[in-house]
Amino acid sequence: MADGATGKSPGIDRVGPYTWDQFLERVRQFHSYPAPGVLVGGIMVAMALEQIPSGVLFNAICETPSCLPDSVQLLTPCTVGNGWLRVVNLGKYAVSLYDKYEGNGVRVHLDPAKLEGWNEIRAWYLKLRIKREQDSARLQEEIRQAGRSIYTLRPVQVKQGERARSSKGAIAICRSCGEAYPVKDGTACLGCQGLAPYEASDAPPG
Amino acid sequence: MADGATGKSPGIDRVGPYTWDQFLERVRQFHSYPAPGVLVGGIMVAMALEQIPSGVLFNAICETPSCLPDSVQLLTPCTVGNGWLRVVNLGKYAVSLYDKYEGNGVRVHLDPAKLEGWNEIRAWYLKLRIKREQDSARLQEEIRQAGRSIYTLRPVQVKQGERARSSKGAIAICRSCGEAYPVKDGTACLGCQGLAPYEASDAPPG
Repeated sequence: MADGATGKSPGIDRVGPYTWDQFLERVRQFHSYPAPGVLVGGIMVAMALEQIPSGVLFNAICETPSCLPDSVQLLTPCTVGNGWLRVVNLGKYAVSLYDKYEGNGVRVHLDPAKLEGWNEIRAWYLKLRIKREQDSARLQEEIRQAGRSIYTLRPVQVKQGERARSSKGAIAICRSCGEAYPVKDGTACLGCQGLAPYEASDAPPG
Repeated sequence: MADGATGKSPGIDRVGPYTWDQFLERVRQFHSYPAPGVLVGGIMVAMALEQIPSGVLFNAICETPSCLPDSVQLLTPCTVGNGWLRVVNLGKYAVSLYDKYEGNGVRVHLDPAKLEGWNEIRAWYLKLRIKREQDSARLQEEIRQAGRSIYTLRPVQVKQGERARSSKGAIAICRSCGEAYPVKDGTACLGCQGLAPYEASDAPPG
């Protein structure tokens, strides 16, 4: 049992529409394992969701690609592919949900100032221990017990131009590779400009 | 019926483990609507998956954030949050699946050279028509009828250093905002360096 658990938080037994155990199972299905980041993220997203008036169409911004986007994709209609979720990688464990037209909304982050007594969470979040030395079961239980007490929620106003993914614009055929690409990227696609993360081959596979 | 449908392709009736209709339903659940890009992406991912020997742990790279990441997240264990899927935005409709340790794999793209006769797909892909003038039902049916005939699959070798998401590294507390951030980002977090997409407030939400 975490030191911080004594009288510090009532804990939680639900994440959005799910019981804690149901949420664990959903995370296992989608994320392949019950990563602490997705559990923490689930609580964050549930807290933010409650601040969005019903009927408001909202978008999401995650400030890290790690774990948190999966919490958003599990608990809201926002996905990376539909563009309602964007990752703006500031390396921070924070998520904002906001009115997609007006930009007003809330941001929730896991607050280092609130982790006293929650030693497993603190060690995991601030990387004070190598992964092998973490106690996963205890960390998971601390996250449940800490409940909402370790997060900070603030209003935000998302800037115009940051509220939705920008359009690719007009499409052309790259004269170098013959593939479709956004005209705005220049006279060849970004892959042919050297940004491809792979070496390609013309040979058929296998 | 598409012109291209006559004798050009046997069409498809399955996408990975799903019948076409089951896949449409899965897309509706996750992506909120059966976007043509997720359907096209589903066929691409299914083609790539068949080239990965069973038992090989693979990662995925999407070359656009639009739609395609959701096809990967629906049909493979790779998600944005678990890091097995990365978006490297080259603005191109292409996906690679590859051995996460060795880097060898396959890349599939929707090939503009194979779209003759598939007029709805071509108009959508190359943005020849505004969205309002697209015939969604006909486009969806063309995607099914074209089956695998409109894609090109090639072997790729993903470069070392591009095979997995890089680690955040050591974590510090930002002296400006008090939040956790990666040490490598400098003496303050990227948000406090001016990269935050929002204006924050200290006041509790209204």
